[in-house]
Amino acid sequence: MPGLRAPSDYSEEPPRHPSLKINAKEPFNAEPPRSALILSYITPVDMFYKRNHGPIPIIDDIESYRVSINGLVENPIQLSMDDIRKLPKYNVTATLQCAGNRRTAMSKTRTVKGVGWDVAALGNATWGGAKLSDVLELVGICELTSVSSLGGKHVEFTSVDRCKEENGGPYKASIPLGRATNPDADVLLAYEMNGEVINRDHGYPLRVVVPGIIGARSVKWLDSISIIAEECQGFFMQRDYKMFPPSVNWENINWATRRPQMDFPVQCAICSLEDMSVVKQGKISICGYAVSGGGRGIERVDVSVDGGKTWMEAYKYQKSGVPYVPEDTSSDKWAWVLFKVEADILPNAEIIAKAVDTAANVQPENVDVIWNLRGILNTSWHRVHVRDASQVAHSNL
Amino acid sequence: MPGLRAPSDYSEEPPRHPSLKINAKEPFNAEPPRSALILSYITPVDMFYKRNHGPIPIIDDIESYRVSINGLVENPIQLSMDDIRKLPKYNVTATLQCAGNRRTAMSKTRTVKGVGWDVAALGNATWGGAKLSDVLELVGICELTSVSSLGGKHVEFTSVDRCKEENGGPYKASIPLGRATNPDADVLLAYEMNGEVINRDHGYPLRVVVPGIIGARSVKWLDSISIIAEECQGFFMQRDYKMFPPSVNWENINWATRRPQMDFPVQCAICSLEDMSVVKQGKISICGYAVSGGGRGIERVDVSVDGGKTWMEAYKYQKSGVPYVPEDTSSDKWAWVLFKVEADILPNAEIIAKAVDTAANVQPENVDVIWNLRGILNTSWHRVHVRDASQVAHSNL
Repeated sequence: MPGLRAPSDYSEEPPRHPSLKINAKEPFNAEPPRSALILSYITPVDMFYKRNHGPIPIIDDIESYRVSINGLVENPIQLSMDDIRKLPKYNVTATLQCAGNRRTAMSKTRTVKGVGWDVAALGNATWGGAKLSDVLELVGICELTSVSSLGGKHVEFTSVDRCKEENGGPYKASIPLGRATNPDADVLLAYEMNGEVINRDHGYPLRVVVPGIIGARSVKWLDSISIIAEECQGFFMQRDYKMFPPSVNWENINWATRRPQMDFPVQCAICSLEDMSVVKQGKISICGYAVSGGGRGIERVDVSVDGGKTWMEAYKYQKSGVPYVPEDTSSDKWAWVLFKVEADILPNAEIIAKAVDTAANVQPENVDVIWNLRGILNTSWHRVHVRDASQVAHSNL
Repeated sequence: MPGLRAPSDYSEEPPRHPSLKINAKEPFNAEPPRSALILSYITPVDMFYKRNHGPIPIIDDIESYRVSINGLVENPIQLSMDDIRKLPKYNVTATLQCAGNRRTAMSKTRTVKGVGWDVAALGNATWGGAKLSDVLELVGICELTSVSSLGGKHVEFTSVDRCKEENGGPYKASIPLGRATNPDADVLLAYEMNGEVINRDHGYPLRVVVPGIIGARSVKWLDSISIIAEECQGFFMQRDYKMFPPSVNWENINWATRRPQMDFPVQCAICSLEDMSVVKQGKISICGYAVSGGGRGIERVDVSVDGGKTWMEAYKYQKSGVPYVPEDTSSDKWAWVLFKVEADILPNAEIIAKAVDTAANVQPENVDVIWNLRGILNTSWHRVHVRDASQVAHSNL
């Protein structure tokens, strides 16, 4: 098979931007610095977080590359890149967020298992490719079908890569057929990222992009699409990326009691300040991102510079200079919103941001109520503690 | 016009069940006792909350009753009840919840404006009727259209009733055209409730039911459906049922800065106990409901009997005796989930319930962070304080 690499062979990894903060080297997991993340609405490819479970595949012979579409279909087919490029092309601007974003902060309450991430395990890109709903029509599965004629209810994506969690087999995940066949869900087989050919780190030559759900279901380096009766039984569907209550630990866990996580809750983070940034007393800009799952828009971002006693509403935008209006046809439904507020900072301030989505869902005030042993979906209020520059200067005397 | 009544004429209200707790008499607003609400998965019609803004219309002459479909359409039409009954009939089990549910508890933090409601301003019924998407096809608007050929983007529903807030005009509301034309959104023109002809209190002869969004958009006593370019400018869309932050008060409010609320956040309440119920020390059943907006299912309901120190997971069901599985095809997508847990109660316990939806959205711990001047969408953790029976007996000596 093209690109097949031993799950421990990291000898041919692609070059990466030196500014990325490496959270794990092999497999390579890295995120940009907070401040770099919000320099632009569209995240540059090299600053987009890298989340991997094995070595990056090398798929050189694009002429012989095929995606097979099989499983519960009358006539399985194999598609070349040319076949996929001949389908109508869509550009969808969508934020992908790792379910483990902000895991490091959750670990401060009680240790969780998984790669540590600060607040930048997400990025917003314009993905170009064919709609999965169009591809499925090629094998006779109609638009807006949630159960196919042969009993298919899920669509499984299998990667070309190899990972330890699958005992050397490929990464895989599935989504419900109803989402896959809904053209409005904008599920793409993407061959472009920000107008360029998608690179190796992000799934060359073809990846899945499922807007509005956790990044783990947007499978890279696509090898096959299978129509299956029950959800994918792979490791990352059945023994990872499930939401457990705080009472569940590694002794009493029963994976079968939970669904694989898909949709995600309202989230936001301040990116213009690091924890313990030294800030001079006076006016500063507080900037960051907010995003919600399921295509729900952001209604409001509240910022406090006094530990939550008083709140200011932040200015929100997607395209620079144009105020964001949730659910407006001019807004990108699947994309994050950047926010900005100017505020006077007092010494040793605790700065907090929290968002409200269009369903009026809010972020939890404290991380302990959503703590879970795998450290997923830390969406608690984002808090940054800043030190007073004058005090720091004094202490250095 | 049939059923037209002066907005202050309450001389011909229908009979109501004597157990209902009346929160306002004219217009009639009432909810069942907590304990009655959860006796069954399907709420009996007479126990379903009544939410009105004027007198209940009387539409006697059903032969001459017509719903007009007009606005931005090529050929406006008028439909009789016979015309609507000839369309395919759907039965959809859906929970309707007033945005003001649990308002009374929000008022305890700071006074809010509006009818006071305990936790029972919602109900779950099986609605029978035609799909709005089928009705709109009759005027040439196709399935899954978000902008019609004549520029329509919203669908406005106008009632036969008369209310003071509209200066004696009818109640009205609109929803986006994309939802109205989506058959999967299950928007109904309902003429049946729980298998019987819908009664006067609930919209006879025809009402709108929009599953998954606040009850205020499910217009009763339907007079007309208008395809319009911008959202409805009625009072209840523009000067009510919008979500404001806690900092907005009646002096600084600017209604234009917010969208009319549609979708609603994850919610739950304990119904087997009143605040300050007197409970004997020992094992009791703690029962209630959980529901989320947008068709999102309920992942988990957590119950604490020690003020939030420790939590138990409740058993969830819809049809009696069958465990509820979120997002399963056998589950009712738009309906609430009932929950139950048995627990040992200590004297003077604070019992709390909180739910998590399939998007991992959680309820806020405290009401103050979601306080808003109109008191809508109080979804904070539901807390019940119970007294110890032995202490009460003692104090009665």
